[in-house]
Formats: sequence, structure tokens, C-alpha cells
Amino acid sequence: MNQQKLVIDGAQLRQTLEDFSAFGATENQGVTRLALSEEDLQAREYFRSQCEALDMVVTVDDLGIMYSTLEGEDPDRPAIYMGSHLDSVKKGGRFDGVLGVVAGLEVARSFVRNKIKPECSIVLINFTNEEGARFEPSMMTSGIVSGKFDKETMMGVTDTEGVTFADALNKIGYVGSIENRLLSGKAFLELHIEQGPILEAESLQIGAVECVVGMGCYEIEITGESNHAGTTPQNMRKDALTTANLCMSELHQRLSSLNDTLVYTMGRFNVYPNIHTVIPNKVVFSLEARHQNEEILQEVEAIIDEIVKQQKSGCSLTVKKLWSRETVWFDSDLVQTIEKSAQTLNLPYKRMVSGAGHDAQFIATMVPTAMIFVPSAGGKSHDEDEYTTWKECENGVNVLLETVLELSEAK
Amino acid sequence: MNQQKLVIDGAQLRQTLEDFSAFGATENQGVTRLALSEEDLQAREYFRSQCEALDMVVTVDDLGIMYSTLEGEDPDRPAIYMGSHLDSVKKGGRFDGVLGVVAGLEVARSFVRNKIKPECSIVLINFTNEEGARFEPSMMTSGIVSGKFDKETMMGVTDTEGVTFADALNKIGYVGSIENRLLSGKAFLELHIEQGPILEAESLQIGAVECVVGMGCYEIEITGESNHAGTTPQNMRKDALTTANLCMSELHQRLSSLNDTLVYTMGRFNVYPNIHTVIPNKVVFSLEARHQNEEILQEVEAIIDEIVKQQKSGCSLTVKKLWSRETVWFDSDLVQTIEKSAQTLNLPYKRMVSGAGHDAQFIATMVPTAMIFVPSAGGKSHDEDEYTTWKECENGVNVLLETVLELSEAK
Repeated sequence: MNQQKLVIDGAQLRQTLEDFSAFGATENQGVTRLALSEEDLQAREYFRSQCEALDMVVTVDDLGIMYSTLEGEDPDRPAIYMGSHLDSVKKGGRFDGVLGVVAGLEVARSFVRNKIKPECSIVLINFTNEEGARFEPSMMTSGIVSGKFDKETMMGVTDTEGVTFADALNKIGYVGSIENRLLSGKAFLELHIEQGPILEAESLQIGAVECVVGMGCYEIEITGESNHAGTTPQNMRKDALTTANLCMSELHQRLSSLNDTLVYTMGRFNVYPNIHTVIPNKVVFSLEARHQNEEILQEVEAIIDEIVKQQKSGCSLTVKKLWSRETVWFDSDLVQTIEKSAQTLNLPYKRMVSGAGHDAQFIATMVPTAMIFVPSAGGKSHDEDEYTTWKECENGVNVLLETVLELSEAK
Repeated sequence: MNQQKLVIDGAQLRQTLEDFSAFGATENQGVTRLALSEEDLQAREYFRSQCEALDMVVTVDDLGIMYSTLEGEDPDRPAIYMGSHLDSVKKGGRFDGVLGVVAGLEVARSFVRNKIKPECSIVLINFTNEEGARFEPSMMTSGIVSGKFDKETMMGVTDTEGVTFADALNKIGYVGSIENRLLSGKAFLELHIEQGPILEAESLQIGAVECVVGMGCYEIEITGESNHAGTTPQNMRKDALTTANLCMSELHQRLSSLNDTLVYTMGRFNVYPNIHTVIPNKVVFSLEARHQNEEILQEVEAIIDEIVKQQKSGCSLTVKKLWSRETVWFDSDLVQTIEKSAQTLNLPYKRMVSGAGHDAQFIATMVPTAMIFVPSAGGKSHDEDEYTTWKECENGVNVLLETVLELSEAK
């Protein structure tokens, strides 16, 4: 092993991140860079120029996904892929997605600067429309590439102004060839901000991500009876909100003690008719729960069913499972390699799960995949206040570089 | 006392109620007769024609309030007033308001049919815009007459299409003279459906209404912090909805045991940003409480303040008093006379409070006032399903007649 550790150029990383944050910059240090917008095009062109300056070859597939290749000693060997996405939500942050793309660029720059030619090729990827903020769903193109979503359906998805994904892709000139799509590889690595508060709270620098957790999303509907708030005695009411309150209390009581790492959220909650002088006759609320163990999610479902069935308030309750997704486990060898890289670099780390979705979870079905997390201040993301220090970014990219060096047998 | 009890003509009452229900009839047996609409005009003209057929003199004041006078032996003696309103909410019922006007008409018809000339004059009133469904607020013109609302301000109130109250009044030709306004009188009696379930539940026919209860209306705002539902551990959340749930549980616990006849309602409840994958950062909900005793309402306020101050969830809570109104006590002699009338007619009755607002509460500040309630099936009102049997209507009008006979010394 090389005694002089190869590291990236921290100042250049910072400069490149700042360059990207200009494309769609908001007044409050954030970015609005919706997929296939003019700002997204600017970021794509800048990314292309930086890659071409390294003599990398940039190709585009039929979904607008960009692939930038640093050719290895043996281009026929399975390549190592790295990347993330350049699009953002409306008034999003400067790190979500772009950090993973710039990280790949810095790794490539380090190879070139140090005149290291890896055994296999190294390919940087910029996935189109990860956020789904302009065109739903999120992770759209990694979903198509991995066979999860139907291309024709997705091409017809429209934004709020009625523009189809296909037309928007065509308009910015990013319709490439289906031949260029990712098919297989040695590894896919995605560096991303945690989007949660755990690393910061535990004073850690690196998360070696083992999986994207599975989840179930439910909708609970409570039907009561509207009546005049002034003339209906308390004991003659069928108040849907009062019943919802009881129901939520029981859900909290049962779910909060089920498992330490279970997360669950009642995020959408609508009351009808929602008038201060009228007893509510309907409440509809969502409950979504996430955990890596399927058994825990099954217990959550059983608890919801039981609580909904046992309510005896005169209101009627129903529960509907809106959708669910299974846990996606990443490649254990890769996770171990990331841990080893953090150890090599003396960076405090832990194995952790991802509660949020990422392109990596779809790519994991095609290529051995893992993710590296770096801290998010206050756990904030999808917010202009999203923040990761330059040093934390640098540490994460160095772990990525170390991991790629290890995988490419370039050390 | 007359041994042969004078009673109204039940068949004629039913026919007249059915005649009125044609003006603005909806498909589902209800009525939409917004104040000063074409349908309201039809009802007014029909009311006028029925009064004039009895040789009653119909006058109109500057607010469009109609007064129909059956002259007594001594027109200089303070008159007895009866009435309610002919306007309805959108998709309202066939009884709310109109019953009180038709009741007065049937009382007058009974006098005329039986050739009884009362000592004092008897005046039927149709208040303009009681519902406030087209022009807010409700009880607008009784509020102006009693000095509660400012006439100029009210004249400028617009409906959803920008039409002012003044223009609408002018358009239907119902701008009369300010000289005709109600100033004083011997009594004002308003017969109305209960709009609550108590009489029906207790198998009673008549409510002798002692007061319109006072109320306080509050708004509670809870501010937490939005974060990603998948990446934020349960114990690191500042979930405004979870805190609202705790807060509501405590409010229910304390308020439900405070007083048997207290009614309180959390009717408006809004969650932000109201997205299933985002932890709620704000909840705003209303709490209104009604009771006849001011001390109980003060205790309600103290409980709300205490619960809001004691929440220790990491969220911040504030409470704002939106408005309140004091209990309006009706004239005790009149209430007693109504009770006596029910006894005379062998109708099961009870003293009760009104949880809803009525024109009578404003008139009570000028003229000795009381109300008579008849049952509402299922407590429904402001609904096409509002229902009171013809017999219950007839019983109520007979109690009104008996009361007027007693007051007018015509027996």
C-alpha cells in the first residue's frame, strides 16, 4: 500500500461546488434547478466542460443521463461508476445530489493530476430527474434504466405547465442513445449528504450506508357526523377529529415503543368541513413508517389495523395501504470497503441506513452498489438552509477516492 | 279563562310552510334562499300578500325588515312582536327561520278567524339577512336596529360577486323608512327549531329558552420543525402534529369533566406543510366553547392557557382569543309565560339554553324577549335534511298563540 495517501484537492472541490451553486442560485444561498430546466442545462454543460478538460468522454443515453468516462488500462473490464444528480427541488440546497457528481469529478481529477491510470474505466454519472420535483416520480430515470418504471409512461409525464418529460428533454438537446445506458459494472458508488441529523449528533464524519429502508404508507379515514357546535351536547356528538385524536394517541403509544430505529410520520392531515362552528364529520390522515426489517413493518401494519378496528366512538374508521417498498440492501463487500477507507483516513464513521430514497437503490439491482453519507447540519435537506462544511465534503470525497483506488486496484 | 282553548289551524300551517318552501326549493327537499335574492323577494311578496289578506298593514324599514301589524283595541299601547327570518343558508332546511315568521302569521290568522281583537297591536317581523350566508355577519339587521352593528359599515358589505348589501336591498325594492324600525314593545317572541338534538332525545315538544349562551373562540398555534420523514429519528423531531395531539388530549381530558352542559369544539384544524413525507412544522386549530355561566367560560380559558404553557415537546405554542360574546338572558317573566302555555296545552317541555345565535338575542336589549324551541330531528340544521314534524310545528305555534293571548289579555 502506498504510504503517501492520495487525497483530493479540497480547495478545488470547494470551488467546483460553488461554481455549480451559481446555476439556479436563490437569494438565500439555495438553488432552484428543476430537472431539464435552463438552470439544469447550464449545470450539465458546465459538468461536460469540466469532464472534457480531463479528456474524459461524455455520452448521453435516451433519458438524458450523462456518462463521463475516464478510460482504464483495460476498457473491457467492468467499470466503476460514481455519481448522483444535478437537479434540485424548488428552493433546495447546494449539496443534495450535486455533491455526488462533483465528488466523482474530483476523484477523476485526482487520477489525472497524479497520472494514475486505473485498471478499469471509471465513469461519472449524472442521473436525470432524481428529485421528481418537476416531473413525478422521483428517481425517474434510474427507475427506467433498472426496469422499475416504464419508459413510455414516464416520457408522457407532464409538469405543472403541461410540458411532457419527452419534450423538455428534447428542448435542452439531451436525447442521446439507448445504447449508452448503464447495463452492468464492477460497482456503483453514490456519495450524498445524510439528509438526517444522526452523523452530526454523534460527531461522525462518514456513514457507510447498508441499505435504503423499506416503508409502508397508509391512509386512515374517519367518518363522523357534522352538527352545530353550539347546540349539540358533548355526549351526542360523532366528532371525527376527537376520534382521530384518540386514534393518533394510541398509534403513538404503540409505535413509539415498537423499535428504537423505526421512524413513522403522520404528515398529511385534513379535517372536513374545517369550520370552527361545525363539528368535524371527516378526518383523513397519512401514516408512513420506515424500517429496514420487514417484520417490523408488518408489525406496524398490524398495529394500525388493530387500533382502527378497536375504535368505539360512534365514528367509522377505515385504513387503506397506499403503497409500500421493500428494503434495498447494498453490496456488503462494498460497504466493508467504504468502512475500511474511513478507517484508513482516520475518519470517525458508522454503518447506517438511508431513510430517504436515492438512485443508488435502483442501480443496486443491476450493479454492486453502496452509498457514502456525510453530515447534514441539523439534518436539513430540500431546504435553502441545507449545509455541510467544506471539510466534511472533502472527507467524504476522500473516502470515495480511497474506495475507488481500492476497487480499481490502482493502489 | 276561556274553557274552549283557542288553537291554530294545523292544516293551514302546514300548507303555508309548504308554500314558503317552494321559494328557492332545492332538489333534496331543502331551500336556498339567500338574503335579498330573487327567492327571498318571492318569499317576502308572498308573506306580504298573506298579511294583507288579513287586513294587516305591512311596513318596511331602512334595512328591509318587514313589519306586519294587526291593530289592537289601543294602538298606542306597547305592541307584541313575533317573528324570525325568511332567508336561508345555501342548501338549508325548510324550517329554520321561516317557521317563526309563519307561526306569527298563523297566530294573526287565529285572531282574525276568531274575531278576537287584542288589547295591543300585534306585529309580525321578518328580519333581513339573519343567516349572514350572503352578506356577513349573521343577524345583521337586528344587530343594526339594536345598535350592535354600524349601519354604514353593513351597507357596504359585499357578497362573493362584489354586490353591496345596500345595492341588493335597493335592487329588490325593499328600502323603507328608518321611522319604521322597531324601537320598543311589550314583548318579542321568536319561535325557532332547536337546531340541536336535546328535545328529540328527551321526548319533549317545547323548549322555553332562557338565554343564548356566551362563548369564547380561541386559536392555538403550534410551531415545530419540518424535516425529512425518513431520515429524522423519532427522538430528534419537533413534530407540530404530535404536540397538537398531546395538547388536544389534555384539552379533552380537562374540558370534558369541567361541566355537564359545556359544549366545546375544535372545528378548524390545519397542518403545514401537509405532505405525507414531511414532518409537520405547524398546526393551527380553533377551539370554541359555549356555556351560559361566565365563570365556566373563564375556567375554559384558564385551562387552555395552562395546557398551552405546560407543553414541553420542543415545539412552541401560542394561544390567541379570537373573540367572545356574553350570555344574553331572556326576560324571565316571558320564559315563565311560555312554560305556563306549554302546561296549559299539556305539552312536555323544559327550560333550556340556545347554543346558536338568533335575532332575539339582539332584540332582547330593547324589548322583553324570549324564544320557543321545537324539536329538530337528529339535531340537524343548515342542512337539507333539517326536519321537524308538522305536529311539532303545530304544537310550537299553539304555545306561541297561547303566550300571545296571555300577554295581550285577549283571553
